[in-house]
Amino acid sequence: MQTIISEKRGIAQIVTLNRPEQRNAISLQMVDELLQQLAEAERDPDLRALVVRGAGGNFCAGGDIGDMLAAQQSAADGGSDAFYRLNRRFGELLEHFNRTPLVVIAALEGAVMGGGVGLACIADITIAESNTTISLPETRLGLPPAQIAPFVVRRIGLAQARRLALSAARIDAQLALALGLTHQVAEGTEALDRALEKQLQAIAGCAPNALAATKQLMLASANLRGDEDLGRLLDRGAELFAAAVQGHEGREGARAFIEKRAPEWQY
Amino acid sequence: MQTIISEKRGIAQIVTLNRPEQRNAISLQMVDELLQQLAEAERDPDLRALVVRGAGGNFCAGGDIGDMLAAQQSAADGGSDAFYRLNRRFGELLEHFNRTPLVVIAALEGAVMGGGVGLACIADITIAESNTTISLPETRLGLPPAQIAPFVVRRIGLAQARRLALSAARIDAQLALALGLTHQVAEGTEALDRALEKQLQAIAGCAPNALAATKQLMLASANLRGDEDLGRLLDRGAELFAAAVQGHEGREGARAFIEKRAPEWQY
Amino acid sequence: MQTIISEKRGIAQIVTLNRPEQRNAISLQMVDELLQQLAEAERDPDLRALVVRGAGGNFCAGGDIGDMLAAQQSAADGGSDAFYRLNRRFGELLEHFNRTPLVVIAALEGAVMGGGVGLACIADITIAESNTTISLPETRLGLPPAQIAPFVVRRIGLAQARRLALSAARIDAQLALALGLTHQVAEGTEALDRALEKQLQAIAGCAPNALAATKQLMLASANLRGDEDLGRLLDRGAELFAAAVQGHEGREGARAFIEKRAPEWQY
Repeated sequence: MQTIISEKRGIAQIVTLNRPEQRNAISLQMVDELLQQLAEAERDPDLRALVVRGAGGNFCAGGDIGDMLAAQQSAADGGSDAFYRLNRRFGELLEHFNRTPLVVIAALEGAVMGGGVGLACIADITIAESNTTISLPETRLGLPPAQIAPFVVRRIGLAQARRLALSAARIDAQLALALGLTHQVAEGTEALDRALEKQLQAIAGCAPNALAATKQLMLASANLRGDEDLGRLLDRGAELFAAAVQGHEGREGARAFIEKRAPEWQY
Repeated sequence: MQTIISEKRGIAQIVTLNRPEQRNAISLQMVDELLQQLAEAERDPDLRALVVRGAGGNFCAGGDIGDMLAAQQSAADGGSDAFYRLNRRFGELLEHFNRTPLVVIAALEGAVMGGGVGLACIADITIAESNTTISLPETRLGLPPAQIAPFVVRRIGLAQARRLALSAARIDAQLALALGLTHQVAEGTEALDRALEKQLQAIAGCAPNALAATKQLMLASANLRGDEDLGRLLDRGAELFAAAVQGHEGREGARAFIEKRAPEWQY
Repeated sequence: MQTIISEKRGIAQIVTLNRPEQRNAISLQMVDELLQQLAEAERDPDLRALVVRGAGGNFCAGGDIGDMLAAQQSAADGGSDAFYRLNRRFGELLEHFNRTPLVVIAALEGAVMGGGVGLACIADITIAESNTTISLPETRLGLPPAQIAPFVVRRIGLAQARRLALSAARIDAQLALALGLTHQVAEGTEALDRALEKQLQAIAGCAPNALAATKQLMLASANLRGDEDLGRLLDRGAELFAAAVQGHEGREGARAFIEKRAPEWQY
């Protein structure tokens, strides 16, 4: 891995975007390494969570200009779909991180721009250092925020997403909290680390398979169209519930509750 | 009725979950009694609103452990879908309370957990006493919050729902207000009662059929997929509007407005 | 134009609802004039934004009583679908203003009622003077808020929309800010004008075609049902991105960025 640092800590894989000179701008190589890292983490039975953060005081400044120029060169050489592939590949990253069964936590600091906002939006839990500034500057460069648009709309609603994207507004951590773009604001790096630790402890009390089933139901809940869809999802929920309660975790959870002790998955 | 207390007061049916020793945990019997009570209230032409609250200082601590153990027994005896039916039946309760034409008001106090959060989420108007704590502890017991997931997502959005469910977080009344889980916070039981009274007075100024038509349109508005769906819903809205304005309520409303008097439905 | 005043100022068309004696209540004629004005503005290549505001200290008090009485007369004469057409025509206005490629800004003051709330809800950017009061009083008149329902739900979510409509509640500018019904609150008319000017300056830094592509993607993002829809939208986004980056605006944006100068579209 050349663009990210990854270390396992208990139930969590901590992935740090590591191109600090470029404020952790996302290169094609970084996309590939992040997807590879996610696939490995999903195969590791110890893991329940994946943390994404940035090196050097910034979270992520968006797409990489170098890749853009390379794609421009490739386009000049006749490879006219280089830009399409470059852009769409980042969308794949967001799709995978959005629907992974692992609990995804984003720890924001400093610059969070463009594609970095996309990463913040797919996290299950987001914590922001108070110096965080968030912006969608694409239209100032003559471009649409193409791959992140649906994830931003799902995260903060159409009305707030329209405004941010159509005026290239820059918002601070407190406004991000009010909009639900972050769940928490921490004052300083130490507070950010403590908040992260506390979230991981909370997850350590939750059963791994129950977390995965819950995330699946939550994601499906955002896609309902009408009463029939709702009924089918409730049927599916009852199936998952019945399997859980009769499975190993459900039985251990009930026993631990009755015996007033921590369940075996608790760290 | 053995698990609920129900009394009629003007335009409202006041339903109190009444298992205070179990912090009003929802048993199968309570589900049945609530559904029966709702059906009766829908047939009563005097009623425009249905209030749900809890006895003994708590709203509702979720599903009942006793029923769970009984289902476990039944499963051991070969009735393997007992858990499925137990869980799905509570989803039916939420579906019915969600789409009733009556205005549903939830008055929250103390513990609001699991299934109790589901009830809070389907209410049209929610008021919370300042001592309210809200949590989705299911994953700590090895279970998914299966039936309530879609109602929580619809109420507070995917991003907030993910976080609450995937870390079993406990939130207070002020945060619930910020997330839209409650519309109002009241300091103390008397203030809660006064706030409830005020909401009922507001509803007493609104025409019964207009309320039902409005609720139908609001619920349908949450299910739109694209521009065609939107167009069809606006067509339907225009039909309901034309019927209302030419019907008894619309004519009485216009006359009362011109004559600067209260309409006949105003209490 | 008899019911609105319209003037072009740089990149923006400023449209003022101008029936101050009726608190800018929306008549059928006003709907026609607004749609005509929008069509003209969309054809003007200089324009990127359209501002809607009200004359005389109020934004808009909803539908016009005079039209209602005329429709009542027409209905008495046998034209029973006059109410249907009157209502549905206003929905057409909202549909067109919602999906115009121009950035729509609403500047709210004083009364914002019924149909006026619909206009506020479809704006990409909304600014409210602190004296603004917002309400959906329809059910107090025996009517449903039929055409605006889906736009209010999309703007502030089902839970807040249900409460506002089903109790005919009146809310102030600060609560509107918390609900996302406005993006900003300004103290006094001068502050409102300055805030408006600042928003227009922000838009003046954004490329016109990129704004239009972004708005198209944002609107489509609100209509996703499942993972397949999401994938298709990301494909479409990548197409728009590739076209933009290789087009005039994308190339000018990149050059301006490298040369550390303002792009040619910046005012």
